[in-house]
Amino acid sequence: MKSDIPTQHDILVVRQIIGNQVHRTPVLTNTTLNQMSGSHLFFKCENLQKGGAFKFRGASHALLTLPNEDRQRGVATHSSGNHAQALSLAARMQGVKAHIVMPENAPKIKVDAVKAYGGEITFCKPTLADRESTLKEVIARTGATEIHPYNDYRIIAGQATAAAELFEQTHQLDYLVTPVGGGGLLSGSILSARYFSPKTKVFGAEPERANDAWESFQKKKLIPVKHPNTIADGLRTSLGTLTFPIIRDGAEDILTTSEDSIIEAMRLIWERMKIVVEPSAAVPLAAIFDRPELFRGKRTGIILSGGNADLNRLPWLESTYFSNH
Amino acid sequence: MKSDIPTQHDILVVRQIIGNQVHRTPVLTNTTLNQMSGSHLFFKCENLQKGGAFKFRGASHALLTLPNEDRQRGVATHSSGNHAQALSLAARMQGVKAHIVMPENAPKIKVDAVKAYGGEITFCKPTLADRESTLKEVIARTGATEIHPYNDYRIIAGQATAAAELFEQTHQLDYLVTPVGGGGLLSGSILSARYFSPKTKVFGAEPERANDAWESFQKKKLIPVKHPNTIADGLRTSLGTLTFPIIRDGAEDILTTSEDSIIEAMRLIWERMKIVVEPSAAVPLAAIFDRPELFRGKRTGIILSGGNADLNRLPWLESTYFSNH
Repeated sequence: MKSDIPTQHDILVVRQIIGNQVHRTPVLTNTTLNQMSGSHLFFKCENLQKGGAFKFRGASHALLTLPNEDRQRGVATHSSGNHAQALSLAARMQGVKAHIVMPENAPKIKVDAVKAYGGEITFCKPTLADRESTLKEVIARTGATEIHPYNDYRIIAGQATAAAELFEQTHQLDYLVTPVGGGGLLSGSILSARYFSPKTKVFGAEPERANDAWESFQKKKLIPVKHPNTIADGLRTSLGTLTFPIIRDGAEDILTTSEDSIIEAMRLIWERMKIVVEPSAAVPLAAIFDRPELFRGKRTGIILSGGNADLNRLPWLESTYFSNH
Repeated sequence: MKSDIPTQHDILVVRQIIGNQVHRTPVLTNTTLNQMSGSHLFFKCENLQKGGAFKFRGASHALLTLPNEDRQRGVATHSSGNHAQALSLAARMQGVKAHIVMPENAPKIKVDAVKAYGGEITFCKPTLADRESTLKEVIARTGATEIHPYNDYRIIAGQATAAAELFEQTHQLDYLVTPVGGGGLLSGSILSARYFSPKTKVFGAEPERANDAWESFQKKKLIPVKHPNTIADGLRTSLGTLTFPIIRDGAEDILTTSEDSIIEAMRLIWERMKIVVEPSAAVPLAAIFDRPELFRGKRTGIILSGGNADLNRLPWLESTYFSNH
């Protein structure tokens, strides 16, 4: 699996491997949101996953299949987001050290979360170049195994298990919509639909302000995002060389949405569903509200990707959210 | 059941009656909160119930068993809280009119919620006397049937179904802790424990600033609260003549807790469990954190009573919350 697109059998095996460690998260429905969207919505609550996001699935898989000879030297990644937390937590649960490279300007709340899960942080300058060079240094020094947040088939196969569960938990879905940043969740969901629910069409949803997946999908060519400036901090990354081909060949479409729509959808999920989701997780619902004609009458799955929101600032209360961000 | 304490058979029948209308809410667990409390906590998520609170159970039961000859004239209650919303929603789902008497100074968010569920609001002066006299006028004018928020065995039996489900969804619980305001949820939970899980000891939890249940339980005499001034707005009411005897005879103890503890527990539930709960729902966890010696090593159920929090003000951000309230 390290070198090939995960097969149906691979994903079934991954479910066995991680089954005792990850939550089988609930699927919630909401009458009001159904009425507002005109669609029958099924929300797969990965915000209730351990570590607060679907990222724990891929990270757990990578850790549980880490060769014994590599365990002592630990794992490493650069991330300031949910992957860093998920990898730290999954590593700690198996007694492995996690080295996390984070930019020195990362929000304190994210630094604290990684520390709370036992991750060992190395700070770097806030540029991609410095993140990558610092990660190389850490790996050279420790011998740790790099676990990339999405451009890794072990991770993609892990993330695929969320959609695989959703298909078991619901009757036939017409559509499935997931957020798309680096593409691990979307590409995994496309694979699970292909193997376990082939009539379900899979859409990616992303912010207009970080629309590299849309552009890459349109032009059938990997085009990284240039200046992502969106509240959906989990979706500021660009597709990877492994995730893009799966998305190019298997996605029904990539749907973009505005910052205002994202904030409004996030507020509605909190208010109506009584669950905490981060902005990235609200992007699919925002995209659905933007396109009532497309989703009307359809049975539509949504993966609520995570719940690691900052509880000290609520975007719908902050007119200046973006300038401060 | 209108005139006698609900029996085991009654509660089983109620579960059949309301089973298609209420959500069987999930039970969540959280490793971090287990570690922090030293207890094994099982959270019954009635914040995810329709209408956002357990109140929908009792209201549904009252509506579904309303005699045909009374349906045309509707139902009525005075409430500015979750019962008003639950009754409005349950009534609308069955094509019955709900008359809700609310104080003219009720928060706009609550007025809007009742309106959104189709309740017909009659405003009154913000005194208990005026609420009661206005309700009498409404009933005299419309012929509506009064549905009291808690001092009614039909309501108590409906609320009892939450604990009955929890006992099915978990292995043997040592303890169950519920918030206590008017006592509908606590008395119903005591009955369900007696019938379905007799080894489980049931505690009520309430704010120190509205400690009438504690005082009544200590003195074995119904003593209404005088000046409740707590953020837990659902718990400002006093026990009723029907709920008190069940609590007096069946509760293990009443636990009180401070405003600071309530706010901290509420924040922890949002942050760690990724769910939205209102202050009242956080009172049991606050009381448990206050008493680590009592709960250590115990399997403890908690009923998260509701999620109708005001998303425009977060108590942990407002040092002046109480003076404004």
